[in-house]
Amino acid sequence: MQRIKCTVSYDGTAFNGYQVQPGQRTVQGVLEKALTKVHKGKFVKVISSGRTDAGVHAIGQVFHFDTDFSIPEEKWPVVLNSILPDEVVIVSAKYVQDDFHARYSVKQKEYRYKVMLGKRRSPFTRDFSLYYPYQLDLEAIQIAARYFIGEHDFTSFCSTKTDKEDKVRTIHNIKVEQDDLELTFSFTGNGFLYNMVRIIVGTLLEVGSGRKKPEEIPVILNKRDRKAAGKTAAAHGLYLWQVQYEEN
Amino acid sequence: MQRIKCTVSYDGTAFNGYQVQPGQRTVQGVLEKALTKVHKGKFVKVISSGRTDAGVHAIGQVFHFDTDFSIPEEKWPVVLNSILPDEVVIVSAKYVQDDFHARYSVKQKEYRYKVMLGKRRSPFTRDFSLYYPYQLDLEAIQIAARYFIGEHDFTSFCSTKTDKEDKVRTIHNIKVEQDDLELTFSFTGNGFLYNMVRIIVGTLLEVGSGRKKPEEIPVILNKRDRKAAGKTAAAHGLYLWQVQYEEN
Repeated sequence: MQRIKCTVSYDGTAFNGYQVQPGQRTVQGVLEKALTKVHKGKFVKVISSGRTDAGVHAIGQVFHFDTDFSIPEEKWPVVLNSILPDEVVIVSAKYVQDDFHARYSVKQKEYRYKVMLGKRRSPFTRDFSLYYPYQLDLEAIQIAARYFIGEHDFTSFCSTKTDKEDKVRTIHNIKVEQDDLELTFSFTGNGFLYNMVRIIVGTLLEVGSGRKKPEEIPVILNKRDRKAAGKTAAAHGLYLWQVQYEEN
Repeated sequence: MQRIKCTVSYDGTAFNGYQVQPGQRTVQGVLEKALTKVHKGKFVKVISSGRTDAGVHAIGQVFHFDTDFSIPEEKWPVVLNSILPDEVVIVSAKYVQDDFHARYSVKQKEYRYKVMLGKRRSPFTRDFSLYYPYQLDLEAIQIAARYFIGEHDFTSFCSTKTDKEDKVRTIHNIKVEQDDLELTFSFTGNGFLYNMVRIIVGTLLEVGSGRKKPEEIPVILNKRDRKAAGKTAAAHGLYLWQVQYEEN
């Protein structure tokens, strides 16, 4: 058996999230179906860096699987992409050591969140960024964003539906950049809780529109109460951008 | 009664083309439905600069309608966009003279066609550009494109399903520009026949991949035979970009 690390990009619009659920069309589901087909009906389990919610996209989600087929690594994307639906594209594949694990070996993840500003919404970005037609104070957002950097208990910025006990995570960096009408939030960190990026973005948008002050962020963090933070920003603006590992 | 000129942008993916057809979801159909709703059930006819095919998009399609409602012109987009589906957005509206006609007053149209190059297709552009993973000779395409500029009989570059007798049109300019992996063809002209842009693009791609020589273009034009030209490029790469009028 050989272990393969794959990088996959997907449009999350037409899926009921990443993780396999009975009777639902999920990204993991179509990946396992394609791999099982390649392996002539023998079920192949896919282990990813983590799940993404319904409507959330990925540029560089990572997963691994084990195979006894010896196909050259550069052929794996070609074989799988010929079977996968158009919304899911294998970007690269690589044979790795047996101790590589797509979830446990993660060193850092990057998420991006896209917001489209402007007087009129665009019919072309409606599934790919949050349309936000209101005035935003970019400087206030930048100031507020800095309070999240570092190690914090993110209970206030985590869905109450989580099953994780430990809510302490480290955000390495947050960038907020505007290019014409597109505002992009980039987050890098050692891990992110359930809905964490979307709740941070929702809260930063409240800061940007004047409903919260930047100085309230540390207060909200200290409350460790989901109700203290802002609304969860819509799923369709969020992208799992890349996953970094110790090696590979 | 007052005449209103509207500019509309739409994602053509989910429509069976522009023109109203019984039992089909069309762009004109949803526009007339929205306008009829605003006019409390009184049918409002929409006249556009021309139809677009199923899957073809628009950045700046133009239509006109007549109304006896006196709403300030800047309010029309707000009212209509609140009713229209997300795939159709009214960009602007303007009261115009009674002799303005969205079809007959057209001075010039611009179409653009987008092609996505690269080793892997992207799940995010699959409905919005043609994926073309083969090597292209951009210089050969540029040379070939120049032969189309000017007044020509475009019979070879028109679907045989057309109902137009006169196949003479003038192309003012063709630009072919590459930005990273995106190749954009821009066409301006006094009018375009059925499938004309898509057949020209399909033929230029055959030139780019070496299956045809640039010097064959004048020969194909002279043949006045659809079979002499290349394949019709897929609808989903095409955009009606803007429509220009004498005034307004």
